[in-house]
Amino acid sequence: MNSPYIYEVEVEWQEERTGLLRSKGLQTLEVSSPPEFHGRSGLWTPEHLFVASVNSCFMLTFLAIAKLAKLAFESFSCYASGKLERGDYSFKFTEITLRAKLKLANESDRERARQILEKAEKKCLVSNSIRPKIYLECDISA
Amino acid sequence: MNSPYIYEVEVEWQEERTGLLRSKGLQTLEVSSPPEFHGRSGLWTPEHLFVASVNSCFMLTFLAIAKLAKLAFESFSCYASGKLERGDYSFKFTEITLRAKLKLANESDRERARQILEKAEKKCLVSNSIRPKIYLECDISA
Repeated sequence: MNSPYIYEVEVEWQEERTGLLRSKGLQTLEVSSPPEFHGRSGLWTPEHLFVASVNSCFMLTFLAIAKLAKLAFESFSCYASGKLERGDYSFKFTEITLRAKLKLANESDRERARQILEKAEKKCLVSNSIRPKIYLECDISA
Repeated sequence: MNSPYIYEVEVEWQEERTGLLRSKGLQTLEVSSPPEFHGRSGLWTPEHLFVASVNSCFMLTFLAIAKLAKLAFESFSCYASGKLERGDYSFKFTEITLRAKLKLANESDRERARQILEKAEKKCLVSNSIRPKIYLECDISA
């Protein structure tokens, strides 16, 4: 077993409902609540960062597995949406939908590519750290 | 009960282990794996976005509750760290530590401020959507 890895991020309140997110060596990011929760529009929000975290982790896990499997592809993108619902005590995310779009180099890899996408969702470390159900849809072309 | 809210983010693969995160009306963000997972350093990663999401949601929940409670304060910041550990099948986040630093306007609000910080952690919608344990430490001054 490897030692654990630690990821550190600081947030500093600025004014109203905005703050600055900082992490060593990374671009500082202004953050706010979404407008429906009285924040300033046009800024990344915790809700968007949450969905971005799941989606980018899924992509990077796919890239890692596809490389090991020597899967040749021309393009990859993925749309993700997170559904936030009011629970008994607090809001929470209940569902994440991932719609992956993959263009293969070879038509014959279609079924193998689907298996790799499904494996990436299951191995994704952010997927494995969250509670909402995750739905994966694959649009594979060649 | 309100209708659910939906948050959407797209990721597009660029080259190697990097991609672009896009969401309507928001600044595009370049993303990669952290260097220990063979990514390009200096870019936001899914791991950092995950910790940023928890931390900024905690801050914004604190701001909302503090406003309702008419708590007067001069500054607020919070350091967050996420511990990523290898499980049986995949890595996952097992712990998040939040170290909140709050400077009050009035010394007499110290205990009330602690209760508000603790409530913010419990009400935080991202906290309620994730699996790792969350530890909150408060440094309250006046």
